[in-house]
Amino acid sequence: MAPGFVQTNLVVLPQEYAFDFLKFCVRNPRPCPVLEVTDAGSPCPSVMAPGADLRTDVPKYRIFEDGELIEEPADIESYWRDDLVSFLLGCSFTFETALLAAGLGLAHLDQGRNVPMYVTGRECVASGPFAGPMVVSMRPYRADEIPLAVAVSGRYPTMHGAPVHIGAPEALGIVNIDEPEFGDSISMGEDQTPVFWACGVTPQAVAMDARPPFMITHSPGHMFITDRLDAEYES
Amino acid sequence: MAPGFVQTNLVVLPQEYAFDFLKFCVRNPRPCPVLEVTDAGSPCPSVMAPGADLRTDVPKYRIFEDGELIEEPADIESYWRDDLVSFLLGCSFTFETALLAAGLGLAHLDQGRNVPMYVTGRECVASGPFAGPMVVSMRPYRADEIPLAVAVSGRYPTMHGAPVHIGAPEALGIVNIDEPEFGDSISMGEDQTPVFWACGVTPQAVAMDARPPFMITHSPGHMFITDRLDAEYES
Repeated sequence: MAPGFVQTNLVVLPQEYAFDFLKFCVRNPRPCPVLEVTDAGSPCPSVMAPGADLRTDVPKYRIFEDGELIEEPADIESYWRDDLVSFLLGCSFTFETALLAAGLGLAHLDQGRNVPMYVTGRECVASGPFAGPMVVSMRPYRADEIPLAVAVSGRYPTMHGAPVHIGAPEALGIVNIDEPEFGDSISMGEDQTPVFWACGVTPQAVAMDARPPFMITHSPGHMFITDRLDAEYES
Repeated sequence: MAPGFVQTNLVVLPQEYAFDFLKFCVRNPRPCPVLEVTDAGSPCPSVMAPGADLRTDVPKYRIFEDGELIEEPADIESYWRDDLVSFLLGCSFTFETALLAAGLGLAHLDQGRNVPMYVTGRECVASGPFAGPMVVSMRPYRADEIPLAVAVSGRYPTMHGAPVHIGAPEALGIVNIDEPEFGDSISMGEDQTPVFWACGVTPQAVAMDARPPFMITHSPGHMFITDRLDAEYES
């Protein structure tokens, strides 16, 4: 959808949680790259998509109460409150588009699956009630492809950037590479090494674990599409 | 001092202003690159310099009440309060070190002056009481040097990154290049073009304009030296 335009993760929290959550993101920029924070009560992301309405312009949402998923609606107008602050977070689609443009494949796409994601043994730096391990996504590459994959994704430091770990899943605390905690397992060639990137599921998992009384996120894969170009975030 | 280590700007605000100020920084990442936010009352920057004490480890501070400078002490232990939140913001020293390493000169250093800084006509995106124009710093380069200066500074996106404007000071709202609002005027060669970078004075100027009842900053040029390497922030 809309190739070349930045897509983002969405997290919506009551104002009383907003500073601690934003502080968490700033302390953990690789998994939690904040692209925009709205004013409390405003559903308009004036930096990333002026004129958009975050209550209706995400294809599917998830509503959480006390950390439990209670509904998955197509809009959140009936749930909106004046104390809600929305966070837009960078997403791997930006660097995946760049990897494809550089002639590198994406095994999970070739196999028609979601990217595999793993809970690691690396603790994020906590902030108030927000704490927990970093989640990573994995894409396998051949030895000769890895340098280019690092260089290309590293050009997008506010979209997770370069990999955080190459090979040695056990050193990241991953027990079984065939059993990702999120997404799908994929098959890897014998000549491929698993390459791990910090993943935007991290802030969502951490926010769920904090069990705020109320929270809204996008539904996995149903991102918010902004007006900004991937190229604007290239360095 | 301590070449190769990241130096930062410091802004300390009461907790009630902290979320709006952090939101301002996230909305204006080029002039306001946030590297760390402390917990309220904690003077320890656990990400950038574990074990440091922000009340004593900056060489000189400025104390503001209602936006007015009231003192410039060497430590702030007697001013410390349990509701104070500290912000460490990226600084141009990181990319200046890289420019020098790439064989590019720094005219203000050669002339023994402070870098000239200008208030532009570009409004930052506001957040609560924090609003105002972007401040830029200027370094002159020859036409053949400009591409390298852009590439080298652009490798540090969280330290102001690439220039925001090259040439045409009037298009930035700068009336007289010889009359910077901050720092010193410098002489420029006929074959040199002014190159402008987003400047960390922006968040300080904006915070002063908001006239919070209480605020502490570092004194200009008296930065906080962290334990982190410039190279860790290269992309």
